[in-house]
Amino acid sequence: MSLKDIIGRALSNWMKGTGPEFDIALSSRVRLARNLEHLPFPAVADESQLKQVLTSTQKALPIECMKNAEFIRLSEISPLERQLLVEKHLISPQHAQNVKHKAAIVREDEAVSVMVNEEDHLRIQAIFPGLQPLEAWSLAGKVDDGFAEKLEFAGSERLGFLTACPTNVGTGMRASIMLHLPALSMTEQMKRVVGVVGQFGLTVRGIYGEGTDILGNIYQMSNQVTLGQSEVEIVEHLTRVAKQIIDQERAAREHILQQSRIRLTDRIFRSYGTLAYARSISTQEAMQLISDVRLGIDMGLVTDLEPRILQELLVIIRPAHLQKLMGRELNVEERDEHRAMLIRERMKQTDK
Amino acid sequence: MSLKDIIGRALSNWMKGTGPEFDIALSSRVRLARNLEHLPFPAVADESQLKQVLTSTQKALPIECMKNAEFIRLSEISPLERQLLVEKHLISPQHAQNVKHKAAIVREDEAVSVMVNEEDHLRIQAIFPGLQPLEAWSLAGKVDDGFAEKLEFAGSERLGFLTACPTNVGTGMRASIMLHLPALSMTEQMKRVVGVVGQFGLTVRGIYGEGTDILGNIYQMSNQVTLGQSEVEIVEHLTRVAKQIIDQERAAREHILQQSRIRLTDRIFRSYGTLAYARSISTQEAMQLISDVRLGIDMGLVTDLEPRILQELLVIIRPAHLQKLMGRELNVEERDEHRAMLIRERMKQTDK
Repeated sequence: MSLKDIIGRALSNWMKGTGPEFDIALSSRVRLARNLEHLPFPAVADESQLKQVLTSTQKALPIECMKNAEFIRLSEISPLERQLLVEKHLISPQHAQNVKHKAAIVREDEAVSVMVNEEDHLRIQAIFPGLQPLEAWSLAGKVDDGFAEKLEFAGSERLGFLTACPTNVGTGMRASIMLHLPALSMTEQMKRVVGVVGQFGLTVRGIYGEGTDILGNIYQMSNQVTLGQSEVEIVEHLTRVAKQIIDQERAAREHILQQSRIRLTDRIFRSYGTLAYARSISTQEAMQLISDVRLGIDMGLVTDLEPRILQELLVIIRPAHLQKLMGRELNVEERDEHRAMLIRERMKQTDK
Repeated sequence: MSLKDIIGRALSNWMKGTGPEFDIALSSRVRLARNLEHLPFPAVADESQLKQVLTSTQKALPIECMKNAEFIRLSEISPLERQLLVEKHLISPQHAQNVKHKAAIVREDEAVSVMVNEEDHLRIQAIFPGLQPLEAWSLAGKVDDGFAEKLEFAGSERLGFLTACPTNVGTGMRASIMLHLPALSMTEQMKRVVGVVGQFGLTVRGIYGEGTDILGNIYQMSNQVTLGQSEVEIVEHLTRVAKQIIDQERAAREHILQQSRIRLTDRIFRSYGTLAYARSISTQEAMQLISDVRLGIDMGLVTDLEPRILQELLVIIRPAHLQKLMGRELNVEERDEHRAMLIRERMKQTDK
């Protein structure tokens, strides 16, 4: 299998590197939490109730908006395959643990995935490339409507949808935008940005959710409030704040270019050279260097690579993808070596 | 002018990267100090006496062993051109200062140069690539004999040649070998090596002589004793000790390769990548990285470059060569940029 095929298989729709504001907004995601009426939340449900959720969900799957979707019982696939789903952002890290009676439904283009029996009975997720949270909401909503034709969801007129965690009650919606913010990071403005974002009722986290590391200057910004606002209001608010951060990132890039063009260019190309030649590299270092190279692409300094290299490498250099690719388990040293090899090969395939 | 031409012009015979033990011994040099009878040493001579030395030397130039030699009055060339001679190791840094009544005689292939009115009236120098101090002594001796046919040198039966500095009295000879010792440096054995070398009556210094920095793990080893031993004895002793150090360096290389192949390979290729892509680089850093790449070439890890790249870059990235190349004075930042550009271009010209 060629590297191109491997990357092709690893890629979901959202990793295309296209969409509005694609130079900074990598992807937009909307996740809806839903629970079936008359059944306890997964954490307190018994085995037969969890099975019932699985069966009902599978039966209610809306065919028209879930083209060629795969219904995957997580207990029937290997830990490695579960980890692949996590690395592609199709399921949460939590969902890959204690997998009895858990499932993932994944649409063919991977733009929609549904986690069954995670914290809630259903978590419907739609991801789009670029700054398109409204489009993601619209698609997730369509899938939600599809399920609702056959399932009755727990909720009340006054509170909206009921969820296992009170922070999700109401719309049950979490909308998030993945932002690449190298210039704000370099100029040490991220602390300030995170503070301001908090004042707007939004939160900023690492790319694999709460408590995960910041890799490659990529931040996930999402709403904290799910109650008292409509879905569209939440999404529009998030979009407005995202656009402001995007403007600030652009200004910071311009500023660095004006103030220290040589130093910036030198840093970007040194990162390029290291990626193209290193024989061993950690995820953390690789992501930082890829972030530099991507900044170089966005600023027109690096001209032989496409922006999507960031999204591609973001996924394929993760441990499960590396091990899948090599066809065997790898220890840390081996992973660092194979990661370096994979990146070198990808860098050689100049896109232009 | 193409880069190839520029490098071609910058290169002396000794930079070919050939000769015995060329993987570690970069070059061998012999320098003979001679003074004219009946004239005071340059430091205490008056103007007319200094002029007399210049005239006598020019007249006595042995034509047969100094083919197409150029007699350069240092006061008649620019400071930049004098610095070029220093960077090519044809004259000492001291000789490029206070240049009134000083001259350099340079043979066409730059294997022989003579400093006139440096510390002594004449300093005859021969350089060969690789470990060939005996060959260098033989050539320097031939030039010395040539001069002696027409000049009378100061000396005595008992002491041998008289020199301005007592440390040179006797043979007036300083023989030195330039050694590339990256593995002994990496394994922190250089302090020990320098100590041992001292016990053998030899000394280790930087590549531009006493008190200069160690650049790119290149060391110059030379004799301290000039009295009480014949020239051949001195050269043979130096060669024996050099061979021992060369063996130790080879053993250290083997050891590192056995113990940490991946780490070594990674370091070498990261250095390669940085050299091939950096947009700004200091001499100090460049030399360290080039040392790594050269080690990679010697160990068969880097296969697209010839060993001589070390010697080439050693010379052409120095400030005067850079400024000559660019045709104008450059400040430190500009030099770092142009140095990076020059190295990038050279790296692109893979040798195989």
